[in-house]
Amino acid sequence: MTEKLSETARDTTLRPLLEAGWSLDDTRDAMTKSYKFSDFTEAFGFMTRAAIWAEKWNHHPEWFNVYNKVDVTLTTHDVGGLSALDVKLARKFDLLAGQG
Amino acid sequence: MTEKLSETARDTTLRPLLEAGWSLDDTRDAMTKSYKFSDFTEAFGFMTRAAIWAEKWNHHPEWFNVYNKVDVTLTTHDVGGLSALDVKLARKFDLLAGQG
Repeated sequence: MTEKLSETARDTTLRPLLEAGWSLDDTRDAMTKSYKFSDFTEAFGFMTRAAIWAEKWNHHPEWFNVYNKVDVTLTTHDVGGLSALDVKLARKFDLLAGQG
Repeated sequence: MTEKLSETARDTTLRPLLEAGWSLDDTRDAMTKSYKFSDFTEAFGFMTRAAIWAEKWNHHPEWFNVYNKVDVTLTTHDVGGLSALDVKLARKFDLLAGQG
């Protein structure tokens, strides 16, 4: 079952992501990252690959796109905060964006 | 050349869009609409079709997606406000969303 990340898990699994450009949004226990690509097709290509994984894992991002920029926010609504699913999706997104 | 919509054009071309659910964001001369779909794949399917037209016409939206919801903002950065390109893209988006 999905549950909120424990303090230990935050130390071990979130740290590498924070070092890779993710930030914590403490106002709602979410994590955010802004990706920049060379142009719109590259940005939307990333979103398309990311969308397929999000749907496959039944865990969807909140995201904003304008031209070559994609701002992603991850959180797990069911548990009211960050869970292991967010960590898994964040790692996948970084890989898909060529930053993993 | 692309230029800002004239007052006459606003009366004639914007009115049907405003009646179809678009709103003006007067703080920056942009137009916005929130689309709702049955699920994520429907929402992202719409975005994918819309993205292809946006790229084809070299006029890109600002948009935000979470699950089945897509919030779209259109404006023409080059002219600092709404142009005929925004009207054209808004009509196409409504058609692609099955609302045109």
